Amino acid sequence: MSKKHQLTVDPSRIRAVLDGQWADYRMNGRAFVDKEHAVLSETGDLEQLRAETLAGVQALIDTGISSLPLPVDQGGQNNHAGYVAAFEELVTAEPSIQIKAGVQFGLFGGALQHLGNAEQHEKWLKPAVRGELLGAFAMTEIGHGSDVASIGTTATYDPETETFIINTPFRAATKEFLGNAAAHGEAAVVFAQLITKGVNHGVHCFFVPIRDGAGGQALPGVTTEDDGRKGGLLGVDNGRLSFDNVRVPRTNLLNRYGDVAADGTYTSDIESPGRRFFTMLGTLVQGRVSLDGASVVAAKLALDIALRYGMQRRQFTGADDDVEEVLLGYQEHQRRLMPLVARVFANATAHDRLLESFQLVFSGEDDSNEARQRLETQAAGFKALSTWDALDTIQECREACGGAGFMWENRLVGLYGDMDVYVTFEGDNTVLLQLVAKRLLSDYAAELKDIDIGGVARYLGTQAAEHSLYRSGLANIGRTIGDIFTPALANKRVRSGHVQQAMLHNRVEVMVADLAGKLRPAATMSQDKAAELFNSVQHQLIEAARAYVEVMKWEALNDAMHAVAERTGHEAEAKLMRRIRDLYGLSLIEEHIGWHIMYGRLSMARARQIGPTIDSLCQKLAANAAELCEAFGYGPQHRRATIAEGIEAERQQEAMDYYRQARARRDFPVDERHLYKARQAQEKKHRR
Amino acid sequence: MSKKHQLTVDPSRIRAVLDGQWADYRMNGRAFVDKEHAVLSETGDLEQLRAETLAGVQALIDTGISSLPLPVDQGGQNNHAGYVAAFEELVTAEPSIQIKAGVQFGLFGGALQHLGNAEQHEKWLKPAVRGELLGAFAMTEIGHGSDVASIGTTATYDPETETFIINTPFRAATKEFLGNAAAHGEAAVVFAQLITKGVNHGVHCFFVPIRDGAGGQALPGVTTEDDGRKGGLLGVDNGRLSFDNVRVPRTNLLNRYGDVAADGTYTSDIESPGRRFFTMLGTLVQGRVSLDGASVVAAKLALDIALRYGMQRRQFTGADDDVEEVLLGYQEHQRRLMPLVARVFANATAHDRLLESFQLVFSGEDDSNEARQRLETQAAGFKALSTWDALDTIQECREACGGAGFMWENRLVGLYGDMDVYVTFEGDNTVLLQLVAKRLLSDYAAELKDIDIGGVARYLGTQAAEHSLYRSGLANIGRTIGDIFTPALANKRVRSGHVQQAMLHNRVEVMVADLAGKLRPAATMSQDKAAELFNSVQHQLIEAARAYVEVMKWEALNDAMHAVAERTGHEAEAKLMRRIRDLYGLSLIEEHIGWHIMYGRLSMARARQIGPTIDSLCQKLAANAAELCEAFGYGPQHRRATIAEGIEAERQQEAMDYYRQARARRDFPVDERHLYKARQAQEKKHRR
Repeated sequence: MSKKHQLTVDPSRIRAVLDGQWADYRMNGRAFVDKEHAVLSETGDLEQLRAETLAGVQALIDTGISSLPLPVDQGGQNNHAGYVAAFEELVTAEPSIQIKAGVQFGLFGGALQHLGNAEQHEKWLKPAVRGELLGAFAMTEIGHGSDVASIGTTATYDPETETFIINTPFRAATKEFLGNAAAHGEAAVVFAQLITKGVNHGVHCFFVPIRDGAGGQALPGVTTEDDGRKGGLLGVDNGRLSFDNVRVPRTNLLNRYGDVAADGTYTSDIESPGRRFFTMLGTLVQGRVSLDGASVVAAKLALDIALRYGMQRRQFTGADDDVEEVLLGYQEHQRRLMPLVARVFANATAHDRLLESFQLVFSGEDDSNEARQRLETQAAGFKALSTWDALDTIQECREACGGAGFMWENRLVGLYGDMDVYVTFEGDNTVLLQLVAKRLLSDYAAELKDIDIGGVARYLGTQAAEHSLYRSGLANIGRTIGDIFTPALANKRVRSGHVQQAMLHNRVEVMVADLAGKLRPAATMSQDKAAELFNSVQHQLIEAARAYVEVMKWEALNDAMHAVAERTGHEAEAKLMRRIRDLYGLSLIEEHIGWHIMYGRLSMARARQIGPTIDSLCQKLAANAAELCEAFGYGPQHRRATIAEGIEAERQQEAMDYYRQARARRDFPVDERHLYKARQAQEKKHRR
Repeated sequence: MSKKHQLTVDPSRIRAVLDGQWADYRMNGRAFVDKEHAVLSETGDLEQLRAETLAGVQALIDTGISSLPLPVDQGGQNNHAGYVAAFEELVTAEPSIQIKAGVQFGLFGGALQHLGNAEQHEKWLKPAVRGELLGAFAMTEIGHGSDVASIGTTATYDPETETFIINTPFRAATKEFLGNAAAHGEAAVVFAQLITKGVNHGVHCFFVPIRDGAGGQALPGVTTEDDGRKGGLLGVDNGRLSFDNVRVPRTNLLNRYGDVAADGTYTSDIESPGRRFFTMLGTLVQGRVSLDGASVVAAKLALDIALRYGMQRRQFTGADDDVEEVLLGYQEHQRRLMPLVARVFANATAHDRLLESFQLVFSGEDDSNEARQRLETQAAGFKALSTWDALDTIQECREACGGAGFMWENRLVGLYGDMDVYVTFEGDNTVLLQLVAKRLLSDYAAELKDIDIGGVARYLGTQAAEHSLYRSGLANIGRTIGDIFTPALANKRVRSGHVQQAMLHNRVEVMVADLAGKLRPAATMSQDKAAELFNSVQHQLIEAARAYVEVMKWEALNDAMHAVAERTGHEAEAKLMRRIRDLYGLSLIEEHIGWHIMYGRLSMARARQIGPTIDSLCQKLAANAAELCEAFGYGPQHRRATIAEGIEAERQQEAMDYYRQARARRDFPVDERHLYKARQAQEKKHRR
């Protein structure tokens, strides 16, 4: 492999970019792998793997990580970003432990913390954080995944006994896919339609005991079912819960945003039911935030394995008859892996911004509506793209390792199975992108903010309408483009950051403006016609959201690059970062190159530069593959892939040594092909 | 979901297109699922799953399928395509059984049949086909996967004892990933460098006993290792074999293409060692052929599950406040699934052509060099794209089913794991596409046929150089394009088949011509410079091959469409087929739309039609989703996915009935949102 383009960089400086502001907490999360119970057995039935995962969650509690987000007076640090950063790194140990811990602390504990009162914290949150009270998060129903507002479970208040009657009225209202439900959960936070005095006040959350002790019998009226085997996350005991008129005390309502008095009178500080609903759900954004970061971790791990193998593994001869070329020396191998490296940098730097928004809101430092909106949009959009990217990256890495990539001992197939569900849980990615799109539209055109039609529009529409206008910054883009696309810029090379930024921004702007124009007539249409119109642009809507998220990620990466260049003054590192940014930006432009040409932002001549520039960037970045692997920050205990730790290089060396020695021996056989060629040459000569 | 575009078609007529010329054999293969042992347990450790898989292979023998390809005088039918067609359908029962059977009959048996002599057939092939002699196919080594010519295992002839000494000289020469090696194989066909009288005659194949009976102890000098758990195909006992100077009789050389006399003299009917090697390997093309077809089966199964679920599952309201819309009514859902349906039709019809080429050559009907070349190119190219398509399709289907898609009981995640390795075994897809590209180049420019440089060029180059020129038909394309792109055509709509064909063809032609121009200087360059040049266009080379394979698949689909239209006269079915062909063709053009615009074959105006036309085709095809599922030809016993069999529709109906009845009751709670809206309207009025 050519080392011509290799830069002399300090990997720790690049690692600092990837690890971001909560690097110390990441280190804590990474250290967990060395604890007892941090990694599951390779084999074992579901029962065993679940028991091991539970032991892993208990081991995690001992590290203190799980109490970081608690208020200071409850023994925590009010440190939400630090907690999430550490938590994300648990993927390096065991995704099953991460997700079961996420259910216990993030979802079950999170609902208690954010929706419950002080007394409820004392009674349930404290033992939950200590792992003494295991619980499920019973929101999703078989019949309703992403459309939470439509769940069927009811909680009807009975003033006679001062109890809520929790009921599953039909099979589709069964709570589904809940971690801790199949085996270990003693209780659940159950989302149900709160009904009192003949009025349905919408979805609220209730604390409901479900088992007689952890792993015990289901309580009367509670039916539990086991989801059994899944595509991954085998250590998590997912299951179903249904309720046959189960009574819980009135005080089991987590009453932060709505309460019922003894006589059945409902009160809430938030008058609008829609806004109340989204405020409640908003407190649960942490799941999306952490999946975004966990996807970055998983993608880095996979690339770490594939790049290390690619630098050792030799196959086919090229420049030299005797020494075979390493895989990463091949252009196609570079083309397969290096753009994924650039993308994981974009995802990591964007994730750091998301953590910033998250900490701001959840610490209470900036709890404004605008800050919450930014957080929700970033979380939805970033999570959607990162989780898809992780799957795509792991699969490419598995294929780049050939048959060895399919072996369990090389980690990649297991990692794929574990990460697979990330793309559809905590909000299906396709639905999340529509949420982002709706925000873009409302922001672009005020008259669209009340659009409440078609498909997911009810969900998205309500949300947007209930919120004050969120400024995505789109309104300013037109001007920015105008400023940027000066005649001088038109002559700049495609590696100019301004050119990349202008093109990526402009695509979003044009797409949103076009959509707004198409959707405007909907306001005066009948419901079914409007739904049809909305549906006819759904694909375009999702593509616009994707383009917007890509711009946000590109900008995070661009800023990180400038920070390295300007603040630290490390030239080689800044140059490497620039290669990464350019590769990310140009890959995005190449993906939609037809669009850019059609809309006149890219001349044919410049368009033809893109492919070769990407080829060249891939080659240059590959020359620093070793340093990039170092920068990922993982060790053999995290990778746990036989092929990544030098065994291949040893074998190749042994084979080369064998041939070198063998060729020197007098009895080393002659290759028949040489004899054949010589004979042919001889005959040719003879014929002349 | 709108039924406006639904065509009244007979699904069995569409099924006939998919099932092709060997439909009866497919039916036999599909019927296997009902036999005992045809499906593995959902749980169980490796040992149990392997035992069950072995029982499945034995059950398969009883069906007689495995003897179809044998000559008539050996109890067979000389029916190779029929065998492969039936074999591919075993994916519906259990991919592990398919692959273990493939190892036993296709690879182990195939090598004995095609490389062995009559005596060897009697001694080893017969018991192999009866399942009485289980064997491994020991070609791949840890150090060399796709580059078979470079394997390290040696078979050195010793005239004293008239034996070959089989030896693994270093660790990288260990045979790897072999089915039947870890547990059940009694023998192996071992590929090794044949050395006699001081000359290495290249790779030949030897029959080597490895165990003392099936499942018994390894024989002296043989080391077996277990590959353990994999990403899928858990029932196949993959493992490693190495040999410490193991002696086998001279007559254990499978000597069809090369033999060694008692005194050590080597003879072969094929003088050129390169050509001899590729002729030997050519007999083993069956693996690629069957993986191409198996991928079609897997993709159909996945689509069958996801479409059936998509037609039942309702989520979010749209046109009607009370009735939610089915998933497949959403544009994005149609956009996700329907192009995959079109693609599987293209892959199925192209596969039928491949089976035709396969039967022609293997039955001996047309054993010409040209026929073999066509077969090899088709097998390599079709397999590469189909196996990737299958993975991509299964994953999209799994996501389209949301969380339910991640549950083992819904089949998709298991299917993904099983099919994963298809993209890198029997020839890594990336290497296979380079093989196709090299053929295209040699055909285009005679002076390039000897290019023998860089990366895989040694492998590809030798192969191309040793063969007589294979006419891919590329040379004629220029003329075709000229004929086709008349001014009249320039005005035709993008749904014109001629327009699609011209554009797809033209892209290949331009890419190949460009590559040829770039590579011409290589002939006069030094080896390392030439290697560098070759490497600098590797990505483009692979893209050109992909484009060529896509054209071949489009043409197969186009012909199938015309056959339905012209030969059968079934108008509705022909119309449906045209929608499928157009969706496939336009999806290909959309994928590379930037290229088509840049090279002036697509005007901006026409380019803008592509997206909306695809949207519309997806919507139209979705209206016939039920008939398309019927046409796939599978039943519940093949799908084995809970969500595909009506349970979701039942649940939705139960919920709808519940609400209908509940709303009629006097005590049905009022929705707070209605009260809130009414209150707001009241206040507004009051303020006026």
